[in-house]
Amino acid sequence: MPHISLSDELPGIRGLLAFRPETSKPLADLANILLHEPNTLSPAERELIATYVSSRNECDYCQTSHGAIAACLLEGDEELVSKVKSDFERAPISDKLKALLAIAGKVQRGGKQVTSEDIERAKRQGATDVEIHDTVLIAAAFCMFNRYVDGLGTWAPTDLSGYKERAAIVAREGYRVPGHADAGR
Amino acid sequence: MPHISLSDELPGIRGLLAFRPETSKPLADLANILLHEPNTLSPAERELIATYVSSRNECDYCQTSHGAIAACLLEGDEELVSKVKSDFERAPISDKLKALLAIAGKVQRGGKQVTSEDIERAKRQGATDVEIHDTVLIAAAFCMFNRYVDGLGTWAPTDLSGYKERAAIVAREGYRVPGHADAGR
Repeated sequence: MPHISLSDELPGIRGLLAFRPETSKPLADLANILLHEPNTLSPAERELIATYVSSRNECDYCQTSHGAIAACLLEGDEELVSKVKSDFERAPISDKLKALLAIAGKVQRGGKQVTSEDIERAKRQGATDVEIHDTVLIAAAFCMFNRYVDGLGTWAPTDLSGYKERAAIVAREGYRVPGHADAGR
Repeated sequence: MPHISLSDELPGIRGLLAFRPETSKPLADLANILLHEPNTLSPAERELIATYVSSRNECDYCQTSHGAIAACLLEGDEELVSKVKSDFERAPISDKLKALLAIAGKVQRGGKQVTSEDIERAKRQGATDVEIHDTVLIAAAFCMFNRYVDGLGTWAPTDLSGYKERAAIVAREGYRVPGHADAGR
């Protein structure tokens, strides 16, 4: 049960975005810029980073919802999403994305965990400064989103079909500024 | 040395806000709503929560800059800021703020650490749902800001006078949307 009085109908962060519209706008804008807007990292790559960090933080709602968006962007390849969560170094993804996921994993544990060697590895695989910046900020932002969702005791649906339906909308339209119950993510 | 090419002149998050103006706007807006805009929690109380979480995350830049803003809002009471960081349960602050700091400390460790007892304690001391929401989101947001600042290896000035000067401006004007080198925080 949520720790504060939220609408029963909206799970995870969606109930929180409806509860406090003032903070929902910058939160949705941040997610949209980091995950959906044009970038040299594909939306699928960025959603995989978000999903990986959420799984390390053991946030059920976020890892399931962003995992579903990643799978949708990957033409339904749920197995790849699972592999990235469990053992990304051996997943069939680019060496650049592996290096970025390694950085994201360090950020999840704490900002000071990132070493020059982690950064050098990513640069050797062709990562740009903006890609490294965005990877760190995506990982840091999900350390916020995950704590926000779990720290207020929100609920996560166990039926996966709802996540898939919503994933298709978000993959297409992005993270819209909430202004009605259906916005957010 | 920063992990990516940032302006030499801007320390901490300020160099990052200048590096990526697209993400700086929602980040500054979020900080301004959570810490500066009208709220039943005073700006000083909210800055103490931000400072406490930043100290738990061992982020030198954030704990020094937000500690300086808190002290400025508390008429220069740096001792109170130190006491909150080291042992808030025995600091001369309200029982409500102690209960909220206890929640913030749990969020810093992970969202699932927050218990119904933590929430009950805050409610018994008069905390509203919005105050509990904002405490959790401030703590979660600083788990992002701290990782952003340290994960990209930004530098933190060791001379405290610069923090104090800047604190007076932020305490008065808030976290403005960056649009020039002097904005941000």
